[in-house]
Amino acid sequence: MPAQSLPFSRNEYDRRLAKVRAAMAARDLDALFVEDPSNMAWLTGYDGWSFYVHQGVVVTHDRDPVWWGRMQDANGALRTVWMEDASVLGYADNYVQSTVRHPMQDLAAHLRDMGYGARRIGLELDNYYFSAKAYLVLREELPEAELVDATALVNWQRGVKSDEEIAFMRKAARISEKIVDGFVERIEPGLAKNELVAGILSDAVRGVGDDWGDYAAIVPLLPSGTDAAAPHLTWDGRPFKKGEATFLEISGCYRRYHAPFCRTVFLGKPPQHIIDAEKALVDGLEAGLEAARPGVPAGDVARALFGSLERAGIKKDSRCGYPIGISYPPDWGERTISFRKEEETILEAGMTFHFMPGLWMDDWGLEITESILIREGGAAECFCDRPRRLYVKD
Amino acid sequence: MPAQSLPFSRNEYDRRLAKVRAAMAARDLDALFVEDPSNMAWLTGYDGWSFYVHQGVVVTHDRDPVWWGRMQDANGALRTVWMEDASVLGYADNYVQSTVRHPMQDLAAHLRDMGYGARRIGLELDNYYFSAKAYLVLREELPEAELVDATALVNWQRGVKSDEEIAFMRKAARISEKIVDGFVERIEPGLAKNELVAGILSDAVRGVGDDWGDYAAIVPLLPSGTDAAAPHLTWDGRPFKKGEATFLEISGCYRRYHAPFCRTVFLGKPPQHIIDAEKALVDGLEAGLEAARPGVPAGDVARALFGSLERAGIKKDSRCGYPIGISYPPDWGERTISFRKEEETILEAGMTFHFMPGLWMDDWGLEITESILIREGGAAECFCDRPRRLYVKD
Repeated sequence: MPAQSLPFSRNEYDRRLAKVRAAMAARDLDALFVEDPSNMAWLTGYDGWSFYVHQGVVVTHDRDPVWWGRMQDANGALRTVWMEDASVLGYADNYVQSTVRHPMQDLAAHLRDMGYGARRIGLELDNYYFSAKAYLVLREELPEAELVDATALVNWQRGVKSDEEIAFMRKAARISEKIVDGFVERIEPGLAKNELVAGILSDAVRGVGDDWGDYAAIVPLLPSGTDAAAPHLTWDGRPFKKGEATFLEISGCYRRYHAPFCRTVFLGKPPQHIIDAEKALVDGLEAGLEAARPGVPAGDVARALFGSLERAGIKKDSRCGYPIGISYPPDWGERTISFRKEEETILEAGMTFHFMPGLWMDDWGLEITESILIREGGAAECFCDRPRRLYVKD
Repeated sequence: MPAQSLPFSRNEYDRRLAKVRAAMAARDLDALFVEDPSNMAWLTGYDGWSFYVHQGVVVTHDRDPVWWGRMQDANGALRTVWMEDASVLGYADNYVQSTVRHPMQDLAAHLRDMGYGARRIGLELDNYYFSAKAYLVLREELPEAELVDATALVNWQRGVKSDEEIAFMRKAARISEKIVDGFVERIEPGLAKNELVAGILSDAVRGVGDDWGDYAAIVPLLPSGTDAAAPHLTWDGRPFKKGEATFLEISGCYRRYHAPFCRTVFLGKPPQHIIDAEKALVDGLEAGLEAARPGVPAGDVARALFGSLERAGIKKDSRCGYPIGISYPPDWGERTISFRKEEETILEAGMTFHFMPGLWMDDWGLEITESILIREGGAAECFCDRPRRLYVKD
């Protein structure tokens, strides 16, 4: 029996499946094995923290997608996917993290049974969580199949969002705003960082109104002072100090959809070089938002930002944005387009990005970012609505 | 400059490195590339949420380990690892999630520079987050090297914990107890599940006393009623109901060390079949704890548990335990030994496990578990100290 409370309409899942099948046809793929949990959820509705074992969805042209995973997680699949029960396959528990057998032996047997043992099968060679061993076992078990790299094939189909998806991202954005508001309100010299994180996680999961909060694909990141030079350090128990900037990188999450959002708070009086950087960054963000329109290459957004930063003497050439939407740990990005100078992919209306020009200098950092929607006839729309500036608490 | 606040003594890191080098020597490995973030942290102290991009540690016999990753994360490495700065290597940002180049091209160049281009190199073919593509690129870039499967080589060295590690796990256990106490106290009919999770996460991160809480490698799992048949569903916003059991699976986390712990609460009067299952499960746990001693095969623990369950007419043959310690998402297990009948690995004093006999039946579930320490001269010690029973709130 299909799941009772699917996040999306059946039409929406049909739309997604049709897009993926068209992309498969364009590459002559008879079947596609999808292990990335974001892609699994986007295609089938499957939702569970079971991606630490091998599992996936098999997409073909002539039948509903097949969910395949650990037997005990098949119970979770039966409760969350739109397909009939016959499209849910579980493997025996002694395949799990075994030193003598591998789950891909079981998958290969199913692929042979389904008639794909000598066909052309796409694999996500560089998506989470498909391992090198998984590939080698499939190759050994399916010697007559042609296994081809279909990394991010599904991710690329996720780029342009439906109205249903955008509605979810707006709900996520309300949660992001709530988290940032609580951060700005609570932070003060002497408060232990983990205490602040307790408030952040609590706000994130409480959500807004009836829209309960889901877990984000990345934990809150909030380095302070010189540690803010390192963008991906997590928290500890030390107190916030006067004279330091702390940036907060978070995302509200509504039913696995994200709207990442970053703001920076300075406790005390910020030095001139940070005030100057703030101005250059905000100008650059505004230039980037203006540039981010349907029909232009994604690299234009990076160029607009970098131009503003360079005029202020700040050198940055790292990636400054990536697509967002549905996701699972360890990343809330879609891993397709990157906002960087060399990126030539053309923007389309309905695409959504985290425009993320973080500055991580030798001994300080500054993050002021926006989750954005590319739309017809105008500059990009920001999902969140909070002042685009450095917050100062003196 | 080595990090200022390493979690462990230099002796402890030396001990770990020596163990890994001995295991490498036993397999004739000249070098080992470790991408699993748990292994990276265990060997070097590296701690950051950057495992969504390719990164790793290169271990050889003749120099300090080399941290290798994204340039912007090198700043995080410099702040968290024990090695000198020269042992931290960053790759350019345009390798990140690129469609035209791969980070492993950069790693291969370093391996050649270090003199390992034609040597025997171990790779974690089935650990997080080493992808199939990463392997294929390395193979292409290092045609003269012999690349061999070293999956879980480091994980196996982590099995027996040092006193320093056990002290961390005891701190994690205090946090686990606090989380479970808060769960039992707060749960009641009508409370929205996400509200309860907000309290759980807040307790987890606040920690106990000065021991601040880190993020656990798995989010809280707490399915209710018939959904408890599916062990890995995450929360939603629906209210708890009278007449339903909810199990909570969580772990306190202290500086990446875990002590997972599960208890089940029944709201109302539990039916006889659940009371019977509780008794069988508690008896089975106690039999398993008695069996879990140095010198016996790990399978004995499973056999002791299953014996008790079978006498009560409950059939279970899925894995009922796994080693625990340091970890990062998506799993807090070490992925080496499994408590299952076929497991012949001999238990040693200092090994730590989550003894996890979850019952996931067709329309109900029950989890009562213990994190345990194998010790000389007695039954296993439980890290947490809370009544081993079904909690009933009527």
